[in-house]
Amino acid sequence: MNGKVFDRVNPESFFSKDIKPALQNDPPGEWMPKIPDDCIRLSSGYPDPELVPVDELKNSVMKLLEEEKDLPLHYLGSQKVEDLKSFIQNLMVDRSMLNDNDEVLITSGACQGIDLIARTLMDDETVVAVEAPTYMEALEIFQNYTKHFISVEVDEHGLRTNRLEALLADRKRKGLKLPRVLYTIPTFQNPTGTTMTEERRKHLMKLAVEYDFLVIEDDAYGEVYFEQGMKSLKSLCGGADPRVLYVGSLSKVVAPGMRIGWVAADQVFIRALAWFKKDLDQPFAQASMGSFLENVDLEKHFTNLRKVYGDKCDLLLSELEKHLPDSVSWYVPKGGYFVWVKVPGVDTSKLLEDAVEVGVSYVPGKYFFLNQEEGLEYLRLSFSYASEGDIVEGVKRLGKVIWAVVEDL
Amino acid sequence: MNGKVFDRVNPESFFSKDIKPALQNDPPGEWMPKIPDDCIRLSSGYPDPELVPVDELKNSVMKLLEEEKDLPLHYLGSQKVEDLKSFIQNLMVDRSMLNDNDEVLITSGACQGIDLIARTLMDDETVVAVEAPTYMEALEIFQNYTKHFISVEVDEHGLRTNRLEALLADRKRKGLKLPRVLYTIPTFQNPTGTTMTEERRKHLMKLAVEYDFLVIEDDAYGEVYFEQGMKSLKSLCGGADPRVLYVGSLSKVVAPGMRIGWVAADQVFIRALAWFKKDLDQPFAQASMGSFLENVDLEKHFTNLRKVYGDKCDLLLSELEKHLPDSVSWYVPKGGYFVWVKVPGVDTSKLLEDAVEVGVSYVPGKYFFLNQEEGLEYLRLSFSYASEGDIVEGVKRLGKVIWAVVEDL
Repeated sequence: MNGKVFDRVNPESFFSKDIKPALQNDPPGEWMPKIPDDCIRLSSGYPDPELVPVDELKNSVMKLLEEEKDLPLHYLGSQKVEDLKSFIQNLMVDRSMLNDNDEVLITSGACQGIDLIARTLMDDETVVAVEAPTYMEALEIFQNYTKHFISVEVDEHGLRTNRLEALLADRKRKGLKLPRVLYTIPTFQNPTGTTMTEERRKHLMKLAVEYDFLVIEDDAYGEVYFEQGMKSLKSLCGGADPRVLYVGSLSKVVAPGMRIGWVAADQVFIRALAWFKKDLDQPFAQASMGSFLENVDLEKHFTNLRKVYGDKCDLLLSELEKHLPDSVSWYVPKGGYFVWVKVPGVDTSKLLEDAVEVGVSYVPGKYFFLNQEEGLEYLRLSFSYASEGDIVEGVKRLGKVIWAVVEDL
Repeated sequence: MNGKVFDRVNPESFFSKDIKPALQNDPPGEWMPKIPDDCIRLSSGYPDPELVPVDELKNSVMKLLEEEKDLPLHYLGSQKVEDLKSFIQNLMVDRSMLNDNDEVLITSGACQGIDLIARTLMDDETVVAVEAPTYMEALEIFQNYTKHFISVEVDEHGLRTNRLEALLADRKRKGLKLPRVLYTIPTFQNPTGTTMTEERRKHLMKLAVEYDFLVIEDDAYGEVYFEQGMKSLKSLCGGADPRVLYVGSLSKVVAPGMRIGWVAADQVFIRALAWFKKDLDQPFAQASMGSFLENVDLEKHFTNLRKVYGDKCDLLLSELEKHLPDSVSWYVPKGGYFVWVKVPGVDTSKLLEDAVEVGVSYVPGKYFFLNQEEGLEYLRLSFSYASEGDIVEGVKRLGKVIWAVVEDL
């Protein structure tokens, strides 16, 4: 065939009108500067490599393929896929999170759940309320669907619901469009590590009813508590109320690479999510996880990781006390993976260059805000991934660059 | 918290305006009647269980976790994920399918590729051209985005491009909107098993240029040839022409449950697909497949499966000759998984009840058509999944119910 028959076409002329606005945003995931391999990664929100149950997962895959042979390698047919779903359903029932009309949908990590919810609930006219700061990947997903956001501050007691109420009342008075959806990580939030108090949780749910919005509750860190867990927003909803769509994940407590998350919500929502999820299931990964959960004492695993992360968090905090100037402050988390640090007067995204230079990384705070200006003085540290030795050395290095810049102020 | 605070809300009142039209369709995947377990499944387009390399995959997972430990269980970091991508890229280069401006995106099976392409290219005003019949899962996906379709007949030489040309000319004359995208399975098509001739392929690409539409080439069966392969549409495009988006898959040649597919297309398209794919990667499954491909002689595996499926196809065809009335006809495939059968005067979806009664299943033809009326007399048989013994017995049973109904005509 003669190559000249073809004129070079412009691919962009074929783009759907629905995605063009999204593609004007910054490309997802490209916000984070590349971190050299030899850096101590206080930036990585990954589980501790020592806590990823590699051998148990290996044995589970062995067992799975010995028991089920080719079944988990087809589209359908593996009992272990069903077992995974039952396991998650039981977990939700145990935590009082499954109402009579609720169903569970297994997703490829929490992110697929968030994406499916966004796809189902958000169009270019939808107003979405988010926390400031919040999980940047969720922000990126929502921004694929809409440009209308309200952001509400988070403090050491979680989302400032009084502030939310004032904002809502103000919009109502002005005849502005009200949010249909609010996205929150109420427990051990990413990036602040803080937890919404029970009082605020109740206030939030009251506002949801009064102003008629749904709540997406992202609970990726809920099991990673150091002393005690929190009642989820989902479990606060009595009866058959469908107002909360709960997003869970095994990424932070088993292994993110398995990509096992779920959504628990009213069956009307789940049916819509499943509609667009069709054909995107992961039989092998799900069956492997199903087999793993059968062969492991999950509560024991949880108990262990709560202890390990609690100790690592304590270590990070005590090193921060030792090595950072007094002007620098942070919230003390009761669970999760992160410590949120304020360095007054310093642009942390510029400071990152110096930090990487001396071999330590963090995530500049601005990436967690819709209005990045609000986050310039903040940075997120993770104590999850780095070893204890690396935490000590990493904070020492971080202290050095912060002292250097603070002295110049 | 007082349960009575909550009024029961109507979940549907929160649905995005973009998805409401989709949810008016029949629910995806619910078209197929449930088949009892003891049926001989001539309906299943699954690989032969004997050809699914269970032991090799098991060993590959072992090797992977021994070599890389926790790396493939995080979000990032596994070299084997990179190796999978390189392998697929090299495969594409070997088949002359990768132009200078092209990139490859690994997807969760071909279906995620098709969904991402639809999301990128289709909105509620887009006209999409499809084959009649065609792969019903692709139809379902496209119908999530648009209601505007043109369907063009497939015969024993593949898509009838003369008919397409006439339709396009007619629409142009009438000032009707022209298709922006055409979806085709040119080689060993699902469900007809037929292959587009080289002449028609060239004609199709000429029409694509003349009428300015893109071609989605679904090549899930391309490697499953009995005697020789076909040059893909993608490889027919000379130079750097971005007109074909190629969708490949390891589902039919390795294992569907691993969900490894890919899209090869101009980088502008790939960048947009990747945008919406973000966070939906599958490190563990991809790394496992990367490890498998390193440890297996894929060409030898392909050679074997071509022989096995060729023999099973011959067997199915010779049994059809023996057991079916003369009025029943079918195409003779040169590859793939399927035989497309015409039973004149018979509604095959009604006949399925009788067939299941005697213990054999097939897929009624109507499900492969946008206008289901066109498919009433057809049925799709798969020789891929059933054993040779089951093929013989299954066709005998099928012959019985077809003879019974034909004698009544």
